[in-house]
Amino acid sequence: MTTTSQRVSDPLTRQASPRVSQSVFDGSRLRVDWADGHRSTFHAVWLRDNCPCPECRHPSGQRLLDTRSIPDGIAVAAARFENGEVETSFADGHRARWATGWLRDHCYCGEERPAGPRHRLWGAEIQSELPTLRFEEVVAGGAGLRAWLSAVDELGFAILRGGPTEPGTVTRAAELFGYVRETNYGRLFDVRSVVNPGNLAYTGLGLGAHTDNPYRDPTPTLQLLHCLSSSAGGGENTLVDGFRVADDLSPGQRDLLASTPVRFRFADEESELETETPVLELDVRGALRAVHYNTRSAQPFRLREELVEPYYAAYLAFGRMLEAPEYRIRFRLEPGDLFIVDNLRVLHGRTGYSESGERHLQGCYADRDGLRSKLAVLSR
Amino acid sequence: MTTTSQRVSDPLTRQASPRVSQSVFDGSRLRVDWADGHRSTFHAVWLRDNCPCPECRHPSGQRLLDTRSIPDGIAVAAARFENGEVETSFADGHRARWATGWLRDHCYCGEERPAGPRHRLWGAEIQSELPTLRFEEVVAGGAGLRAWLSAVDELGFAILRGGPTEPGTVTRAAELFGYVRETNYGRLFDVRSVVNPGNLAYTGLGLGAHTDNPYRDPTPTLQLLHCLSSSAGGGENTLVDGFRVADDLSPGQRDLLASTPVRFRFADEESELETETPVLELDVRGALRAVHYNTRSAQPFRLREELVEPYYAAYLAFGRMLEAPEYRIRFRLEPGDLFIVDNLRVLHGRTGYSESGERHLQGCYADRDGLRSKLAVLSR
Repeated sequence: MTTTSQRVSDPLTRQASPRVSQSVFDGSRLRVDWADGHRSTFHAVWLRDNCPCPECRHPSGQRLLDTRSIPDGIAVAAARFENGEVETSFADGHRARWATGWLRDHCYCGEERPAGPRHRLWGAEIQSELPTLRFEEVVAGGAGLRAWLSAVDELGFAILRGGPTEPGTVTRAAELFGYVRETNYGRLFDVRSVVNPGNLAYTGLGLGAHTDNPYRDPTPTLQLLHCLSSSAGGGENTLVDGFRVADDLSPGQRDLLASTPVRFRFADEESELETETPVLELDVRGALRAVHYNTRSAQPFRLREELVEPYYAAYLAFGRMLEAPEYRIRFRLEPGDLFIVDNLRVLHGRTGYSESGERHLQGCYADRDGLRSKLAVLSR
Repeated sequence: MTTTSQRVSDPLTRQASPRVSQSVFDGSRLRVDWADGHRSTFHAVWLRDNCPCPECRHPSGQRLLDTRSIPDGIAVAAARFENGEVETSFADGHRARWATGWLRDHCYCGEERPAGPRHRLWGAEIQSELPTLRFEEVVAGGAGLRAWLSAVDELGFAILRGGPTEPGTVTRAAELFGYVRETNYGRLFDVRSVVNPGNLAYTGLGLGAHTDNPYRDPTPTLQLLHCLSSSAGGGENTLVDGFRVADDLSPGQRDLLASTPVRFRFADEESELETETPVLELDVRGALRAVHYNTRSAQPFRLREELVEPYYAAYLAFGRMLEAPEYRIRFRLEPGDLFIVDNLRVLHGRTGYSESGERHLQGCYADRDGLRSKLAVLSR
């Protein structure tokens, strides 16, 4: 065992480099006491795995070292802090060097910090400040595009106004940040409806809040919908933050919706799509990762008899909350307008129409990885 | 409460309709004793939700009834079994009618029957019977295509021999069953390598078993790789069934790999992709749903200190098993050959080359839903 005591002395790196008051290593680990009182421990195998030398890491950051090749029982043979850097040599002769700031940043204590977007949950209170941009400022890229993508990342949706009414605009919008997910519905799909409230109940034309395509594996993570023409009066699009509603469910009902697989299915002449997922899908940390709610494609539940009534109670409670005015925002798509939703978080629907006419929309699917990537690059 | 006793009497449906020895209902549920001794219970809300009448169901099978509109406390007012059908009327006046066979098929006791493919786990023992088809028999569609897709569904991979060596063949192959998943690497990507074993260690050209793009959300579920030309001798593609290897891990190590989130990341000038997932991803039933193993893009682990050594032990044990000869199959791609892997199950890699030369491959991603849909339709 060796002990080193070290203060960062280089004035050029003093600001950036955290000060080390003491470091100790035995073969299997390196312990660092930082001047601010924090203590970090790094294991020999972890250090060897994260060697940043050109032999072990590609300039892109990809690891060239195959972790599997690290010898069993790898040990730290020496460790030295100097000039804002730490150099470690291993029993197998390899040497690794890091900025002390990197080590501090990668202290294991960061374990609970999840990756991914920072969600801001919302309800009807954002009705007066809907994230809305002009088509031309988003198409121009840069700050406009970034603002639009950032809204989707944070709120799960965003609206674009004043775009063209040409067919194909919807895929063009998706290509501003990512890639269209082609499906059996095509690269894009047409939604044409002839609205005649005189013949149908007003509410008959409404469509309850739902996510799209839960029967697909993987489920499309983004959906875009573009209005080419609309002569029918009164109908509105509705959106609701499924994460917010799930948050407000009772813990028992949330657990039931998260632990019960539901089968979703769509079949026609050319397709047969079926998958199984709970309505509330959790990640490995137990955090909500996705909502899948679609009464059209949900298959008959198969549940233990004693769960049927509690499950339906939870399913209906959640479904009815998704329709409640306090959670829902509404807006009308005029020709040229479009919106994008995070299809694993925000549910969409529409109200009925008060005047007859025709309506022509085009929709497409895309995925979040492209959106987040573009947003990250624009934010550099 | 009412009791009916009923035997299916119509000779035309006797074969298809299960016999009912007794049925009993109270307001909230219907209990059926089948002649074979099985007993089913169906709740009023479940029955109402699954009414197959044209008002409640579209001919496609999609539910038109919005489950949320079912009144609270819905009750069965009457139930009658006759001529292989059961008719139920509800307290709200609605009537529903099913074939008794449908009810029997949807008995809740089916709850544990998971959806999805029937996996056949494999190791090196299938080396002599690799699922290999000729390009022309698969392109023809029908039984050839079905056999190829069926192998992917069951084994997680399949090989095609004797195809063209034209650029773009790989996306053409994906379009035989589904849709290309375009990414920042394009609709397809080129893998060109100049092989010179004289200058590099033989194993330096090998590539350990890995899944592609775990940093992507959603991760592509299928990958195709097509060989356009290869003048380098000796190199082979390797595949391993990650589900089989996970099955052979100790339960403690499997649990560690399933419960610990790992961050994966790729960044270049134009992209920044990051996501978090455990190496072994389980579904809500606790069954293995996906393997994500890629030492290139795995970020420094953030773990509680006491978990670092056990986690690395599990990670290395799994990784080394993925390289073990008893799990691995090998084959050489000749110009015109291609293979497809289920990227959430089967890991791919390659051995080094013994002779110098050049190699040109093209790859693309696609998704399982298209494949399974096509397979289901071909199997009708």
